Amino acid sequence: MIVLKIGGSLNGNFNSVCGDIKRLYDAGERLVIVHGGGETTNELSRRLGIEVEKVTSPSGFESRRTTKEVLEVFVMACAGKVNRFLVAELQRVGVQAIGLCGADGRLIEAERKVIKALTPEGKVRIIKDDYSGKITRVNSELLERLLDMGLVPVVAPLALSPLGELLNVDGDTLASKIALALRSENLVILSDVPGLLRDLSDPGSLIKEVSLDMEEEMLALAKGRMKKKVMALFEAMKGGVKRGVIASGYDESPVFSALQGKGTLFKGGSEPDLGVDRARREIWKWSISQGALEVS
Amino acid sequence: MIVLKIGGSLNGNFNSVCGDIKRLYDAGERLVIVHGGGETTNELSRRLGIEVEKVTSPSGFESRRTTKEVLEVFVMACAGKVNRFLVAELQRVGVQAIGLCGADGRLIEAERKVIKALTPEGKVRIIKDDYSGKITRVNSELLERLLDMGLVPVVAPLALSPLGELLNVDGDTLASKIALALRSENLVILSDVPGLLRDLSDPGSLIKEVSLDMEEEMLALAKGRMKKKVMALFEAMKGGVKRGVIASGYDESPVFSALQGKGTLFKGGSEPDLGVDRARREIWKWSISQGALEVS
Repeated sequence: MIVLKIGGSLNGNFNSVCGDIKRLYDAGERLVIVHGGGETTNELSRRLGIEVEKVTSPSGFESRRTTKEVLEVFVMACAGKVNRFLVAELQRVGVQAIGLCGADGRLIEAERKVIKALTPEGKVRIIKDDYSGKITRVNSELLERLLDMGLVPVVAPLALSPLGELLNVDGDTLASKIALALRSENLVILSDVPGLLRDLSDPGSLIKEVSLDMEEEMLALAKGRMKKKVMALFEAMKGGVKRGVIASGYDESPVFSALQGKGTLFKGGSEPDLGVDRARREIWKWSISQGALEVS
Repeated sequence: MIVLKIGGSLNGNFNSVCGDIKRLYDAGERLVIVHGGGETTNELSRRLGIEVEKVTSPSGFESRRTTKEVLEVFVMACAGKVNRFLVAELQRVGVQAIGLCGADGRLIEAERKVIKALTPEGKVRIIKDDYSGKITRVNSELLERLLDMGLVPVVAPLALSPLGELLNVDGDTLASKIALALRSENLVILSDVPGLLRDLSDPGSLIKEVSLDMEEEMLALAKGRMKKKVMALFEAMKGGVKRGVIASGYDESPVFSALQGKGTLFKGGSEPDLGVDRARREIWKWSISQGALEVS
């Protein structure tokens, strides 16, 4: 089982990602895809002349302020354009994908966040009317049933509040929560960077492997959006996910490369699971025989 | 079983429609919803400064020209905004809705249309690069399985071509094809008019009942979008749908009113199906006991 997060910045490179998904799907792997949509949302906002406000939390996180107007744009861009075209692209290559957002069958439930934002004067401002959420529940039964039907769920990061509101949620966190709910062995996060770097200006400073005891160090190191990814992966590892990877989506075969450890590998759990490894080896062998992978 | 089409012009009146859906859902009725999205698409096009070209076919049908750019807007507005918010509204009232478009599990397949359009000079122009489709297949197995899971499919009129392209399809035709594929007894089309009128300027000229032998007369009578609805209903009746209704969505209880024959009732089939009628009577009785219906 693999939960795969495809970053919103990879819109242009869906082709090679979808090719990998097709190979894993044909090999019988159970897959759930989570996608982003921040860039498409920003682009549509620009075209509509809607100014997107950024807020910075007291702990230094920067995020998009989700007003009602921005939520609508997010729904159209992310749960509309990105989700529907990604599903069509997967169908084009022969994957039985099904596009979902959190409202569908109450797939993802969330509570509205109360946002603490720093004002330019350094004061803390409380924002209560934001349409972003903290995930409270994943309907794993629905996902399991769709997977049993041979479908590949493609999930937009949009959740449902107890009052029936749609809420924007973080895609990396969502992927982690889904991996935990489904007891997935693998969580792969593809984005536009090669992995976690010690020094952002030096691609050679890539951290190749991270273990559970390195949490504090890694969180101190990670900046901006990368911090969310690192937090999501540590949460997943602590809950039993065995292999977490942050890797580049720009590789020729990005999902296979990531599963082989290219990028930053987060090693969770200690018990060896030979069954899983054996299945994985079969997939490698099959992929290599199809000319899909070169093994160095 | 009821297939319900909610016209795109009813966006503002989803509340009462969703209330009716909730009552039918609670009574155990199997429901599939199809929605429109033309108005939301036109509005988003306007906001984005995209000019939507209208084309008129030699037989007099006017339709929106779906360029690649217009298709993207349609995906965002109709399969994004309308679909996701309608599902959220249904969840808010307690209906386990699931939003779908034709790409999801290859739900709706279509071929790209070759459009014949009249030029202002009265010549016929052939348009091959349009992103609108003629429905070729409904994946009824997927719909049945979702219905068996207690879900209410909410379908956007967007189909998948053999090449994996998303194509805009007519919502009324889609509802009719779904009703046929699922052998639904009922097909209800709600829009912003009270039904089929003999004289468009006189609401008193409503045609109350239409039988199979009136096809020619009714098609000659119906104009513009109404012609599509009438064609869709005749196709459904000929395929075995017993009760087709075109009715106003602005009623207080629009789905129940339509099922009771308010609007224009298309009576298909001749064999009495007492089982269905009995089930229906139980729903009426239940609804009346809940104060949901007044019976005159």
